[in-house]
Amino acid sequence: MKKKLETFPNPKPGRKYTITHINSEFTSVCPKTGLPDFGVITITYIPDKICLELKALKYYFLEYRNKGIFYEDITNKILDDLVAACKPLEMEITSEWSTRGGMNSIITAKYTK
Amino acid sequence: MKKKLETFPNPKPGRKYTITHINSEFTSVCPKTGLPDFGVITITYIPDKICLELKALKYYFLEYRNKGIFYEDITNKILDDLVAACKPLEMEITSEWSTRGGMNSIITAKYTK
Amino acid sequence: MKKKLETFPNPKPGRKYTITHINSEFTSVCPKTGLPDFGVITITYIPDKICLELKALKYYFLEYRNKGIFYEDITNKILDDLVAACKPLEMEITSEWSTRGGMNSIITAKYTK
Amino acid sequence: MKKKLETFPNPKPGRKYTITHINSEFTSVCPKTGLPDFGVITITYIPDKICLELKALKYYFLEYRNKGIFYEDITNKILDDLVAACKPLEMEITSEWSTRGGMNSIITAKYTK
Amino acid sequence: MKKKLETFPNPKPGRKYTITHINSEFTSVCPKTGLPDFGVITITYIPDKICLELKALKYYFLEYRNKGIFYEDITNKILDDLVAACKPLEMEITSEWSTRGGMNSIITAKYTK
Amino acid sequence: MKKKLETFPNPKPGRKYTITHINSEFTSVCPKTGLPDFGVITITYIPDKICLELKALKYYFLEYRNKGIFYEDITNKILDDLVAACKPLEMEITSEWSTRGGMNSIITAKYTK
Amino acid sequence: MKKKLETFPNPKPGRKYTITHINSEFTSVCPKTGLPDFGVITITYIPDKICLELKALKYYFLEYRNKGIFYEDITNKILDDLVAACKPLEMEITSEWSTRGGMNSIITAKYTK
Amino acid sequence: MKKKLETFPNPKPGRKYTITHINSEFTSVCPKTGLPDFGVITITYIPDKICLELKALKYYFLEYRNKGIFYEDITNKILDDLVAACKPLEMEITSEWSTRGGMNSIITAKYTK
Amino acid sequence: MKKKLETFPNPKPGRKYTITHINSEFTSVCPKTGLPDFGVITITYIPDKICLELKALKYYFLEYRNKGIFYEDITNKILDDLVAACKPLEMEITSEWSTRGGMNSIITAKYTK
Amino acid sequence: MKKKLETFPNPKPGRKYTITHINSEFTSVCPKTGLPDFGVITITYIPDKICLELKALKYYFLEYRNKGIFYEDITNKILDDLVAACKPLEMEITSEWSTRGGMNSIITAKYTK
Repeated sequence: MKKKLETFPNPKPGRKYTITHINSEFTSVCPKTGLPDFGVITITYIPDKICLELKALKYYFLEYRNKGIFYEDITNKILDDLVAACKPLEMEITSEWSTRGGMNSIITAKYTK
Repeated sequence: MKKKLETFPNPKPGRKYTITHINSEFTSVCPKTGLPDFGVITITYIPDKICLELKALKYYFLEYRNKGIFYEDITNKILDDLVAACKPLEMEITSEWSTRGGMNSIITAKYTK
Repeated sequence: MKKKLETFPNPKPGRKYTITHINSEFTSVCPKTGLPDFGVITITYIPDKICLELKALKYYFLEYRNKGIFYEDITNKILDDLVAACKPLEMEITSEWSTRGGMNSIITAKYTK
Repeated sequence: MKKKLETFPNPKPGRKYTITHINSEFTSVCPKTGLPDFGVITITYIPDKICLELKALKYYFLEYRNKGIFYEDITNKILDDLVAACKPLEMEITSEWSTRGGMNSIITAKYTK
Repeated sequence: MKKKLETFPNPKPGRKYTITHINSEFTSVCPKTGLPDFGVITITYIPDKICLELKALKYYFLEYRNKGIFYEDITNKILDDLVAACKPLEMEITSEWSTRGGMNSIITAKYTK
Repeated sequence: MKKKLETFPNPKPGRKYTITHINSEFTSVCPKTGLPDFGVITITYIPDKICLELKALKYYFLEYRNKGIFYEDITNKILDDLVAACKPLEMEITSEWSTRGGMNSIITAKYTK
Repeated sequence: MKKKLETFPNPKPGRKYTITHINSEFTSVCPKTGLPDFGVITITYIPDKICLELKALKYYFLEYRNKGIFYEDITNKILDDLVAACKPLEMEITSEWSTRGGMNSIITAKYTK
Repeated sequence: MKKKLETFPNPKPGRKYTITHINSEFTSVCPKTGLPDFGVITITYIPDKICLELKALKYYFLEYRNKGIFYEDITNKILDDLVAACKPLEMEITSEWSTRGGMNSIITAKYTK
Repeated sequence: MKKKLETFPNPKPGRKYTITHINSEFTSVCPKTGLPDFGVITITYIPDKICLELKALKYYFLEYRNKGIFYEDITNKILDDLVAACKPLEMEITSEWSTRGGMNSIITAKYTK
Repeated sequence: MKKKLETFPNPKPGRKYTITHINSEFTSVCPKTGLPDFGVITITYIPDKICLELKALKYYFLEYRNKGIFYEDITNKILDDLVAACKPLEMEITSEWSTRGGMNSIITAKYTK
């Protein structure tokens, strides 16, 4: 799916600063039950030469809407796709999932150049 | 009780990332009074080769529903059972208990390989 | 189950005042799935000649712990049992249930003499 | 879509009591932009002879996941479908929508026999 | 205990206005267990010719600190004592009690001239 | 400014139901100081034959961004403009303003056909 | 103190609408102890021909900063002063006071033409 | 007072884990004014060979109910008593006190073997 | 824009202390859509010889009101302007942006002498 | 102003523990506008041989009520005065100020022996 992601040049390439994007409306489908999952995805990264373009990022997330995929898989896949797209100095992805049977899950994965 | 726990292969075994599962509907029985206790159990771990399967984990917790056991014991026993089941790099269990006589208790135990 | 309920004489029988008891630790079992349900039960009543004794009320609720029964049924049954036990001028029962598959339910039933 | 809805006999048909179901994970699609909308749907009704079955209701809501429909339309259509399915004494539907361009919308429609 | 209560002339006797005093630090003793109870007492009244003096009211509440008395009794007794002391047009007492065994109680009693 | 407002036919014209739109990002300019004011505008109405189109409504609000106008004036003017645009059965406008010198203001105006 | 209050013509004199001003930074002095009191004053009124000017209102409140006066007195005096200044159709004043010895007070007084 | 404290053998003596008990209903008496103080006491410790028994701990706290003692003194005395009773590897006591004259106090004392 | 910023001598130049200013009413314009953006800007710095004057800082922020500029750019530009104006030992700027299409962004940039 | 401050001997001089006093009702006057400022002052210190007496501390704060002084100045002056009075091992003062023109300020200054 990574071809959908777009980038723009970092406006302050010499400074190590952090960018966070929080998507509170992520949804995918549980591959076991076929029922939808709902989550909050938080991306935090230190850009190197390029930044993630926000609108393309939103469309990237929309591609998961009807796709069957597990929590652990999604989180690692988003990290891999976004690192490939913008080659940051550091990036961390956190996914927080809504309650299922009285249980909530949170997955956090990190990349360092 | 640990035979009930199931696992699946870690989808990203080379990366050190964390998984958290929060059970807000844990209940067991106080061995002294025979009255029910209610708690929130939080599991945080860094998987090695295998991950805990969520549905089997839920059924594992259900086995405590009518069992008499103390706070300190439950927390250490859950840690022992889950470490045995998925052999993680690190795991931490926190149990937070509802008010009894104006008092609340929180127990936290940690395992490192 | 109603034989467990106990009462005591209303200390101010001439005055129309209201008593509310909130049980935040109610649990029963879903008859369909065999899985536990968790709820908050609120009882509000105007006593006539007798009041509900609080400790016996707590033991009355404990009898639902391993019983399979639906939300709508529980709420009406609690109302019937408590009205039979203390013959109040008015009584209202509200049950609020924890999230199942992204959905919450609330049932409210009322009795007036 | 209404064929999916199922019902069961009201366990206490002589008493006027209220049932509320809150779906915090409703999602549909904006017919103008093709982008997803997210909402909370609250159903409150006084049953007459039959009640709405909760699992079928959840599947009924899932049919909107990829359907293009406006806020005002959804709210009125859900009311029409659910009234047709369970013929209640009264029913009210409220839909609360997540922020779009700094604006939130809430629609409330009511039916009385 | 009512001799401790003091009053002062209503500064605006012709106007029907309301005065609320909330004591968040009320404590008494359970006559059954000998253990302390903790509550929030809210007094709302429409004064007639005299108002309750606040400092004397605080000392009145302190007399319950080591006294064994039930929730329903306290609420009605406070209403009787304060009505006798300041002869208001209307007065309402609400007592909200801290959690005991997963249960909370709220008692509300009202007086109208 | 009212020419900017657009409408669409009420999808359920026979039913008296309510529509609420909340704009949390309203800003105008204080005519006295020239400094910006920030507010939350809530529109609640019962549509008759037509409904307010949401995107045009957003653009209508944007016209106030650099306009000097007082709180009481804005609230009444928005009510007049929106009533003229969609001829509702009832409409209420509430404007809540951010803190200025330790003070907050809220204005509410209502129209009934 | 009322000479400080200023007014301006009601911009919509034919419509019965409400204006609320909340002062979260009110302070006066307790006449008994000489210690400062802190409160939140809420004014809600339906204007007739004139409205209260906000800046003059703020200066009016400042005059209480070092003045010794009781809760019940302040509330009634503010109501009298503001009614005299703007001759509204209705006005209500609520004063909510910060904790003193575990107790909070709230006074509400209302005027109707 | 320390004779009242009871202990039981640590169920997992080889593991360094933490136990927290929070008493939200602590009350003592100010030695200066004779008026009651209300606080929240938090105990966090790493047990060595023995753990604090919870019911005896509750009765230990009750002995302060009518005792005149200052904030700084109580906090250090509780630490000394509990360390003497259970000889932990580490222990920290925090006492947070309710508002007096617009001021709150928090005291934290720590012991390390 | 930096000519608008004013400063005053640090009243305690020998001590390393921190000053935080939070602007909850920042607004600029998205250069892509021409629609307004709303944000909260937090400035934290350790002053050296001079401090930022607060009123001039407010006017500095007002210059962004109708200016088209991206999130990443604004944050870095504010940091550059303020560092140039007051030559602090350290400064950090955080900008938190309101929801757009279900997504929020936060940018943090830091300067150290 | 420091002569007003009083102290008492540290009841546990050998132990490094922390004391926090939070004054939520601090007020002074802006020297520029003559208008009142409102703040929350937090004092955290590790006592050496003496502790700050709480009632005298309250009276110390009251002396700022009608004094014109800037945020940065107050914070550093309070730190200097309190350090001089009780000669602590460490002390930190934080002042958090209420909203002025949409902006809040927080100042933190620290002393170490």
